Amino acid sequence: MAAKAKQHSCEFRPHFKTHQSLEVGRWIRSEGVTGITVSSPSMALYFVEDGWDDITIAFPFYAGMLNDLKKIEKSARIRLFIHEPEHLALLDKELSNEFKFYIEIDGGYGRSGIDFSDRTKIDELIITSKKHSKSNFHGFYIHDGRTYKARSENEIEDQISPAFTALAKLKSNYPDAAISLGDTPSASVMDNLDTLDELTAGNFVFYDWMQVQIGSCNLNDVALFVLLPVAQSIKNGKQAIIHGGAVHLSKDTIQTEGKLSFGQAVIIKNTEVTNIKGAYLSALSQEHGTMQGFDLYPESDYVTICPVHSCLTANLFKEYHTFDGSVIEKRILS
Amino acid sequence: MAAKAKQHSCEFRPHFKTHQSLEVGRWIRSEGVTGITVSSPSMALYFVEDGWDDITIAFPFYAGMLNDLKKIEKSARIRLFIHEPEHLALLDKELSNEFKFYIEIDGGYGRSGIDFSDRTKIDELIITSKKHSKSNFHGFYIHDGRTYKARSENEIEDQISPAFTALAKLKSNYPDAAISLGDTPSASVMDNLDTLDELTAGNFVFYDWMQVQIGSCNLNDVALFVLLPVAQSIKNGKQAIIHGGAVHLSKDTIQTEGKLSFGQAVIIKNTEVTNIKGAYLSALSQEHGTMQGFDLYPESDYVTICPVHSCLTANLFKEYHTFDGSVIEKRILS
Repeated sequence: MAAKAKQHSCEFRPHFKTHQSLEVGRWIRSEGVTGITVSSPSMALYFVEDGWDDITIAFPFYAGMLNDLKKIEKSARIRLFIHEPEHLALLDKELSNEFKFYIEIDGGYGRSGIDFSDRTKIDELIITSKKHSKSNFHGFYIHDGRTYKARSENEIEDQISPAFTALAKLKSNYPDAAISLGDTPSASVMDNLDTLDELTAGNFVFYDWMQVQIGSCNLNDVALFVLLPVAQSIKNGKQAIIHGGAVHLSKDTIQTEGKLSFGQAVIIKNTEVTNIKGAYLSALSQEHGTMQGFDLYPESDYVTICPVHSCLTANLFKEYHTFDGSVIEKRILS
Repeated sequence: MAAKAKQHSCEFRPHFKTHQSLEVGRWIRSEGVTGITVSSPSMALYFVEDGWDDITIAFPFYAGMLNDLKKIEKSARIRLFIHEPEHLALLDKELSNEFKFYIEIDGGYGRSGIDFSDRTKIDELIITSKKHSKSNFHGFYIHDGRTYKARSENEIEDQISPAFTALAKLKSNYPDAAISLGDTPSASVMDNLDTLDELTAGNFVFYDWMQVQIGSCNLNDVALFVLLPVAQSIKNGKQAIIHGGAVHLSKDTIQTEGKLSFGQAVIIKNTEVTNIKGAYLSALSQEHGTMQGFDLYPESDYVTICPVHSCLTANLFKEYHTFDGSVIEKRILS
């Protein structure tokens, strides 16, 4: 991803919410990355400790962030998402240093952000920022979650297309504004990043079963799996109770071959990952997982699960274990 | 719950997986409770540290538990769920002390356990246990999650009825076996616990929005809420983006007034909890929550959310904050 961004003269500011690990962050730093993206001020503080000094907090600014921002700005330059002009006055009064801000754009996804056609609001924000000495308008940020509906490379491109139309219009109206894009599916499959000034994808660091289904990656690109003990074989061995529930995997689901899956069973041999078709988790309670297709899975005391959503699964563990036996520490809860 | 169990001469062995807190455990100890239930050996070790010395690990036994069980038995008597005769031989060889075991019964719920009509398997387990000096058959344990489908007290009683029929049959066939029941809905509404020897409910300690919908409790019985910052008002103030996502609430849902809810917005005044009808979380991503009915909620920088499933929500936080300003520590992840 770093190489792709470089090739297209696009600044790579990866989202660190997926791995939440200083050590994984250092691997990314060794690719020449100097600016990062996080989803909360407390996550920013975690990475500041390891010397990261240029951090985007990719969440709509609210006044409750101020205390943490005052700590962060002592060591790092801050980029914020601003959607209300009065927040610029508040930040000008409360912060000590200059900061950059993005206007988060809703290109039709309908979560957070400002409608790309709302030029009155956009102009009001930019004009207001010029009245204050600390705020510097930097550009537009878009995370278009509609790409998660895709089930092939072509569908990803179809889903992201309205966002690009929105960004192109904004670029023509505000030629000096940077254009920043945040979703892993489109960052993974787009061949041409020329429209973009910055790429902020995050999930790509691990990928997951959802991204395989979307078409962002192959199963062999996935780098996060959960090893779960088999507790009880049931239904004449066709199913099993696994010691892995919502406190281990969280509860995101994705349709797989017509069935709702909470996680796909795989085997890993010499770093080659093989999907065991029909072997998946069909239900999760707090600690119990119900596995279908247990008879299809090679006999073992453990099942390797490719999680549906690696961001949420990683958040539930204290550390990562690599195949060569080392332990990678990570941030624990927020 | 402790008083109710006492009144019916039922041993109260509450499940501690909901609160996962030594301090909350001490409140329960002060009610005269001496034996507890947990969902994993690592959770047992956490409570052993605070002097709990009689612990049921309410999860089907598997060999991977042995290392932790060896640590636990140094300080506590252990009760296990056993479903395979060969596990009794393994435990006899590996453990140093005697232990009790339950046969977990599937009364039709279809998760873990042995079918209540499978007398061959039940007899085999009991007979095998007598051949070994350390294993002592204690009784039958049932957790019937079908009560979670109920939406009134009567429906809870209807849903639990097959489990009671199963338990009554087992009691007549194995008169010396203890009968142990584990779900919060039936424990909450049953007036007559005479069939039961032990009550192991856990969620009741906090309850949650799901239990209110099921009919187990009133909203004023709920003891766990999450205070979440409002980040952005959208759709002309009818909706808002809340800083609360799957990493704060987990992703359990329940239909509420015909809509899928990830959490109900409430206000709390003088410990009186009021449901703001139509104000709820309709979608969650990692850190973003989309709130409907934001215009119905009193103007504030924060929204108080009654979580759908308090067990999963509590698991995602490092501590509890009480209304009088004290902090209650808890176990952090597994």
